Amino acid sequence: MRVGVLTGGGDCPGLNAVIRAVVRKGIKDYGYEFVGFRDGWRGPLEGDTMPLDVEAVRGILPRGGTILGSSRTNLMKIEGGVERVKDNMAGLGVDALVAIGGEDTLGVARQLHDRGVNVVGVPKTIDNDLNATDYTFGFDTAVNIATEAIDRLHTTAESHHRALVVEVMGRHAGWIALHSGMAAGANVILIPERPFDIDEVVKHVESRFRTQYAPIIVVAEGAHPKEGQMELATGEKDSFGHVRLGGIGQRLAEEIEQRTGKEARSVVLGHVQRGGTPSAFDRVLATRLGVNAIEAVHDKSFGKMVGLRGTDIVRVDLAEATDTLKTVPAERYTEAEVFFG
Amino acid sequence: MRVGVLTGGGDCPGLNAVIRAVVRKGIKDYGYEFVGFRDGWRGPLEGDTMPLDVEAVRGILPRGGTILGSSRTNLMKIEGGVERVKDNMAGLGVDALVAIGGEDTLGVARQLHDRGVNVVGVPKTIDNDLNATDYTFGFDTAVNIATEAIDRLHTTAESHHRALVVEVMGRHAGWIALHSGMAAGANVILIPERPFDIDEVVKHVESRFRTQYAPIIVVAEGAHPKEGQMELATGEKDSFGHVRLGGIGQRLAEEIEQRTGKEARSVVLGHVQRGGTPSAFDRVLATRLGVNAIEAVHDKSFGKMVGLRGTDIVRVDLAEATDTLKTVPAERYTEAEVFFG
Amino acid sequence: MRVGVLTGGGDCPGLNAVIRAVVRKGIKDYGYEFVGFRDGWRGPLEGDTMPLDVEAVRGILPRGGTILGSSRTNLMKIEGGVERVKDNMAGLGVDALVAIGGEDTLGVARQLHDRGVNVVGVPKTIDNDLNATDYTFGFDTAVNIATEAIDRLHTTAESHHRALVVEVMGRHAGWIALHSGMAAGANVILIPERPFDIDEVVKHVESRFRTQYAPIIVVAEGAHPKEGQMELATGEKDSFGHVRLGGIGQRLAEEIEQRTGKEARSVVLGHVQRGGTPSAFDRVLATRLGVNAIEAVHDKSFGKMVGLRGTDIVRVDLAEATDTLKTVPAERYTEAEVFFG
Amino acid sequence: MRVGVLTGGGDCPGLNAVIRAVVRKGIKDYGYEFVGFRDGWRGPLEGDTMPLDVEAVRGILPRGGTILGSSRTNLMKIEGGVERVKDNMAGLGVDALVAIGGEDTLGVARQLHDRGVNVVGVPKTIDNDLNATDYTFGFDTAVNIATEAIDRLHTTAESHHRALVVEVMGRHAGWIALHSGMAAGANVILIPERPFDIDEVVKHVESRFRTQYAPIIVVAEGAHPKEGQMELATGEKDSFGHVRLGGIGQRLAEEIEQRTGKEARSVVLGHVQRGGTPSAFDRVLATRLGVNAIEAVHDKSFGKMVGLRGTDIVRVDLAEATDTLKTVPAERYTEAEVFFG
Repeated sequence: MRVGVLTGGGDCPGLNAVIRAVVRKGIKDYGYEFVGFRDGWRGPLEGDTMPLDVEAVRGILPRGGTILGSSRTNLMKIEGGVERVKDNMAGLGVDALVAIGGEDTLGVARQLHDRGVNVVGVPKTIDNDLNATDYTFGFDTAVNIATEAIDRLHTTAESHHRALVVEVMGRHAGWIALHSGMAAGANVILIPERPFDIDEVVKHVESRFRTQYAPIIVVAEGAHPKEGQMELATGEKDSFGHVRLGGIGQRLAEEIEQRTGKEARSVVLGHVQRGGTPSAFDRVLATRLGVNAIEAVHDKSFGKMVGLRGTDIVRVDLAEATDTLKTVPAERYTEAEVFFG
Repeated sequence: MRVGVLTGGGDCPGLNAVIRAVVRKGIKDYGYEFVGFRDGWRGPLEGDTMPLDVEAVRGILPRGGTILGSSRTNLMKIEGGVERVKDNMAGLGVDALVAIGGEDTLGVARQLHDRGVNVVGVPKTIDNDLNATDYTFGFDTAVNIATEAIDRLHTTAESHHRALVVEVMGRHAGWIALHSGMAAGANVILIPERPFDIDEVVKHVESRFRTQYAPIIVVAEGAHPKEGQMELATGEKDSFGHVRLGGIGQRLAEEIEQRTGKEARSVVLGHVQRGGTPSAFDRVLATRLGVNAIEAVHDKSFGKMVGLRGTDIVRVDLAEATDTLKTVPAERYTEAEVFFG
Repeated sequence: MRVGVLTGGGDCPGLNAVIRAVVRKGIKDYGYEFVGFRDGWRGPLEGDTMPLDVEAVRGILPRGGTILGSSRTNLMKIEGGVERVKDNMAGLGVDALVAIGGEDTLGVARQLHDRGVNVVGVPKTIDNDLNATDYTFGFDTAVNIATEAIDRLHTTAESHHRALVVEVMGRHAGWIALHSGMAAGANVILIPERPFDIDEVVKHVESRFRTQYAPIIVVAEGAHPKEGQMELATGEKDSFGHVRLGGIGQRLAEEIEQRTGKEARSVVLGHVQRGGTPSAFDRVLATRLGVNAIEAVHDKSFGKMVGLRGTDIVRVDLAEATDTLKTVPAERYTEAEVFFG
Repeated sequence: MRVGVLTGGGDCPGLNAVIRAVVRKGIKDYGYEFVGFRDGWRGPLEGDTMPLDVEAVRGILPRGGTILGSSRTNLMKIEGGVERVKDNMAGLGVDALVAIGGEDTLGVARQLHDRGVNVVGVPKTIDNDLNATDYTFGFDTAVNIATEAIDRLHTTAESHHRALVVEVMGRHAGWIALHSGMAAGANVILIPERPFDIDEVVKHVESRFRTQYAPIIVVAEGAHPKEGQMELATGEKDSFGHVRLGGIGQRLAEEIEQRTGKEARSVVLGHVQRGGTPSAFDRVLATRLGVNAIEAVHDKSFGKMVGLRGTDIVRVDLAEATDTLKTVPAERYTEAEVFFG
């Protein structure tokens, strides 16, 4: 059996741990051979490969990023893309694919499976917003990094009697904001799922200023005020046409400064959240997903994704995994609100 | 409503986070008053209390240890202990108890409940060996600390072509060894649940020495060889009659040195694993448990323990929680064995 | 003897360590009493004090920020300010001041000393740009935080074949950029002392893109291109009239993207660099400075600042300390250039 | 010019950073070629080499250990060893050696230079006990690791009202104990340079127990009591004839327990202190030493060692560097004593 492996979408701590586990498990228990496809779907599309054996994956477990490279190449938008992938797989003698990625990558995996390709998916997203798994690897690392940063910001805020707004990742789901804000004792947490009331935010900030402590507001990049409440800058775009990250944090700091008359500053954590060595939790999760992805390949359980349920690794349909986004439920936000103000 | 809070058993990162959550939630949502009992069951036994309000719990979320102190006082072994606790609670006007602790503390809580005391339990153990919860807080922190230490040891082992044996906590269950060993790429992981074969260990060590890398063996303090295989030192005791921590790690290093003719050294991580600031995962878990313990008190759901199931906080009978130890299942060890040698 | 203590200017990891050392040393060895002045020069100006004894400084050694609070109140711009400080000191029976701060705070200290106030200065700045000391505490912590962040960014840059521009603190001196860039293997380091040539920067970036690695550019916030080279955004100001931090990092990423046709992103580390627990180096340095500041008070060695020379703590004139800024010498930049490209 | 590079003695964070700097500087500025000798003096003795070019040193800056391997092979004890090294160097066309190591390695380097070999030394020791340099790389990393561990131990000690003895590295000099103890707020610090009085230690421990805090004692592995005071275990030896690390920490904990009647535990940090990624300080120091070692080679300044003086890298005679050990001066210990008890 020859198995191709690829990583798609934004990078995420734990990708290398999955790759290593897939390769070590496949070789040791089933004698598989492996082919590494470079840069997500671009690899099988263009037949761009790298060798993938025990030697190639030595030492990569603790390393962030992905030795396979990644890209956002969308196979489905490329004329004849699926056929080219099938041809390249056939040409290379690749019988099955392990596709590690987020909503987009797994969506393509699902469509390939519908067209007869043997695929097993491994879920990946910093944002933790994929259905059909309790957690995705990379999320715990991101939350730890954000929490450590907020821990540090507390003392600087207090020494200067100043509000600090910390913008963390999360365009569509507020998981990183919720967990890091809860872990680091934020006074307000703002998430995309719940448009915020700027008057309430200001009320919490002012109540905090009346103690010897200083307010820390954690805001997901995709959070936004209730309609008509705060004028947001129209989205600037960079030369590639992407809307620049950031924005809401700085905007919010300005608004708080104006309304409270106290200094407010913002910090945008940005890419630091997604790089570097994975936390132990993410390394264990990624390793277990890799091992179990190979078990799925061995069982010819294609069209499936491996995911975490409680402490078990389970298999779910790729369809189920990519249907809807997993957002923060109301009761989780209510738990966090206990500590606002 | 007046609620007493106590922490029993060995300390654990996240205890303060639970205490803070319990107090903040109870005051904000239900107007409860709180009484802090000092040093586990010694507090209610002797009526030794400290004030516990919002001010008392400020800033403790990220701090290791417990502001309430802890002890291993076993109420059940004290003549008339239960009556004294009931009398002291009555005298202080305390209607309910939140008891945060491990097997022993929760076992006492269960017996108190059987005798008419209103108790809600919160599970705590570094070792993660409590039933009826997916994880206990403190465990993730301990695994992160052990993983970081093993990461560091890899480079020193390689530079000197020497084997390193890392002894981690876990007298009855090998969870810390399993997770940290898997996370840090150990070549062998030894746990109490599975008596090891010294010949196999040596085989893995020797196979590793044939690469440019060096062997790291992670061993739980409670791991032991198959009967008759390796003579272990008879347990030395300290002046309090406790068997000294450590032992198997050093013994194993000696054995490896003798059998392979290569240098082997041991490191005993010890108390470092249980101190200091909790990981983000543990802070979130501890906070959620605290919030939900108060919901249980509010619902008069006494005799219960709050626990984690998947991503939900659930309530289980204290009996269920303390009946048996949660040990590492065979299939989890099999997953890890993929990476041995 | 009664000694007043104050902290002025931006906060900095290690301030609390100095305060603790001053108080512990003064009480233990000389039986001094202490008065804490709040929020820099505002404290003695308004007679705003807090108690400062052994109990007050317990546990603050590892904590970032300053328990005394800080501000940028400039005494010299306040009509009759100096007289009010003298009156308040007399009224409180304060015989001498230990002033912990940067260029501004120490400049005021020097002028106060010229007008008869007993002052000893302790140098403090994240930026390490104070003369008459080899290092200032806070700097090592900031460099460690920036280095860790850049370590993390390497893997994300490589996985996406993208350039990352990291903006660190340093308006007038490039010490943080130099040290963190050197420590983390940046491909280009840009500092205020040396206007950069954008063509050279692009050349280094392109040469790096030809390897399997990706370019990381570390830029001090005060760095700028050679005249006429790159149009910078005119400085936006916030509602307090301060020019917003940030700017050059994002501007540089845009320019690199346009010129190379490859993705480039920027990260502004911001306030995270100055908060949180100090590194061991900074704790030792801060503690030694505090101890020696009290020795200077005891010796009536007023008008002096304590500073680090090699491994010794020495005393220098406040005048010498505040005359000129300590910028990065050309030969240090040359050492770093070895690793560009 | 062909330059050989070797690393000798115990491993130390920063070795790889020196190797990288030596190679990058030599190739970029002077077009040198490099030969890597394996495992300290064993490499040139046996002619065991590895290629050393820009590709070979990519990515090693943040990695602990040494890609060249290390050993304690003592050239001077090998009959005809010096001649064999000279022959091997000649055979390989190696004109000069950069020897990175501690007292032993540099002592051999000095003797080789006396016999006509072109050598430049780079000082290395975790213990910071080398003369002729303010600091050695690796020391700051070790102190940071020990400080973090002690930070963690504070909370566990307090929660259990128990004394904790932390044994750190330092057989002949107490630098790591002094700095980590001072940085982490130890209540007593014991170093080899100053035989301790057990009665005084117990007095400090008891005074600490009267507060709400708990005593932490930091002890260098080479510290010992005044003559006749405390019976130490006779040194057990391992199968290689080395005296086992550890000992004084556990012995001291027992003694404290017996004398105070309170629980005391010991933690031996061991090899964790010398592995893993170097701190930013050590990476900068190691890089600068590497760059300047090549400048020394270029200047034919053989028989010299590069070292740190203040913020400058200087050259000193190898003789000066290896004559005597740099121990902790009395005044540094006096500074630390302010915080005892």
